[in-house]
Amino acid sequence: MKLYVVGIGPGEDCQLTGKAIMAIEESQLVVGYDVYIDLIKHLLPDKETLTTPMKREVDRCKLAVEAAIAGKKVAVISSGDAGIYGMAGLIYEVLAEYEATDIQVEVIPGITAASSAAAVLGAPLTHDFAVISLSDLLTPWEVIEKRLKLAAEAGFAICIYNPSSKKRSDYLKKACEIILSVADRDTPCGYVRNIGREGQTSKILTLGELVKEQVDMFTTVIIGNKNTRVINDRLVTSRGYKGI
Amino acid sequence: MKLYVVGIGPGEDCQLTGKAIMAIEESQLVVGYDVYIDLIKHLLPDKETLTTPMKREVDRCKLAVEAAIAGKKVAVISSGDAGIYGMAGLIYEVLAEYEATDIQVEVIPGITAASSAAAVLGAPLTHDFAVISLSDLLTPWEVIEKRLKLAAEAGFAICIYNPSSKKRSDYLKKACEIILSVADRDTPCGYVRNIGREGQTSKILTLGELVKEQVDMFTTVIIGNKNTRVINDRLVTSRGYKGI
Ligand SMILES: C[S@@+](CC[C@H](N)C(=O)[O-])C[C@H]1O[C@@H](n2cnc3c(N)ncnc32)[C@H](O)[C@@H]1O
Ligand SMILES: C[S@@+](CC[C@H](N)C(=O)[O-])C[C@H]1O[C@@H](n2cnc3c(N)ncnc32)[C@H](O)[C@@H]1O
Repeated sequence: MKLYVVGIGPGEDCQLTGKAIMAIEESQLVVGYDVYIDLIKHLLPDKETLTTPMKREVDRCKLAVEAAIAGKKVAVISSGDAGIYGMAGLIYEVLAEYEATDIQVEVIPGITAASSAAAVLGAPLTHDFAVISLSDLLTPWEVIEKRLKLAAEAGFAICIYNPSSKKRSDYLKKACEIILSVADRDTPCGYVRNIGREGQTSKILTLGELVKEQVDMFTTVIIGNKNTRVINDRLVTSRGYKGI
Repeated sequence: MKLYVVGIGPGEDCQLTGKAIMAIEESQLVVGYDVYIDLIKHLLPDKETLTTPMKREVDRCKLAVEAAIAGKKVAVISSGDAGIYGMAGLIYEVLAEYEATDIQVEVIPGITAASSAAAVLGAPLTHDFAVISLSDLLTPWEVIEKRLKLAAEAGFAICIYNPSSKKRSDYLKKACEIILSVADRDTPCGYVRNIGREGQTSKILTLGELVKEQVDMFTTVIIGNKNTRVINDRLVTSRGYKGI
């Protein structure tokens, strides 16, 4: 039996791949966080869906695995890419807790927020970069701090997921302060909120300005490196082609 | 006038987004490296195309910009995501060399090799990771070495693009040796060759084995971190959910 784990991209239909749409159409049951099911519900006429609230990831995976064991074709959906802070890893981990089954997991990639945010801002991730989540629900904050510091020292452009939440509204500020211990205040940065969804907004600013900015959890932040410039209101990291 | 920079994903049609297909269909001229034009040529019946060989990126961008200035709707295509080691940044840089124009650049993201390789291998990039190219055509090798070292120290999973070429067949070996100075020999790793193209192959192995492996430039390599395990022949990095 197939168990698809499908990345649906940032939110708008036109950013799903054909493969993602086919997997969803082929499935009898679509499982996901309610906000994401909502985003694609017009693709699911008369389809059985199963939603669980935000933090019940393990439960969601168990429900999906058990439905697959019971013989249903199931698609578990994630926003962006299912393999990047998405459900794919957890599905493999949960499935391993069950006795040997004939379930075949297939991960179907989607456009991750790093790619969609970068495209809105210009081209800030054209060269080496690091992807870091500021969520300390599952990662100790000291590890996050260390990664921010070493990523800045390495000269990576940095893409930040989960930059904020109600309980940790000052995390982006703390992250910027760590990066500022290594990088210039005028390092070009940008962020995009609600990519591909209603009310998409974006802003380009310096690291010295970003440290004072409030963003919410529906935002992806990109911090440039030494090769990042603002060209015609776009954030562009040069790959260093000679002759330009 | 619109100038699209379009990521076509790893290679197979079903991994293009609807938005990428629309942009290509809407364009009068499609510009790209010949291998990529070939991959999508059946989407381009009777469409004007313009190809240049591999290393002529700047020329390719100039041709595209000049055609757009002359009034054509143009799509420049990249494999994977156009913003990740792709043409998007260079288009902005080249356009800035021309006098003010009314050309609007729109970057249309695609599935990047990190996402598509991870999906084939399992779910190795579920948490923080770094993306590093081993190509030293535009980056000094010392910078690449430093990034590999610091990324390993930071505990990132590492996704390697451009792991090899004819002139630098030992670069992956050198990269693994640097990472081995920090990480265990039995760190789970994997690589995928020709993702979404004819003859796709993949392999899961340890870092101690990867250091002895030969791969080519059509390959994406993923090196796990302390939380990466092999589960049922798949490479999975745990996000650390409790209760699993
Ligand atoms: C749990 S992660 C999920 C990431 C997702 N799997 C991906 O690959 O994009 C949630 C974070 O992703 C980012 N994100 C996901 N979708 C977004 C969107 N449409 N607009 C802005 N940020 C988004 C935000 O940083 C958010 O806090
Ligand atoms: C110049 S980079 C282009 C990356 C591309 N823009 C992307 O986002 O995937 C070329 C490198 O990307 C990786 N790559 C791109 N497409 C691939 C594919 N179909 N299969 C395996 N690796 C691929 C390989 O590491 C290759 O050396």
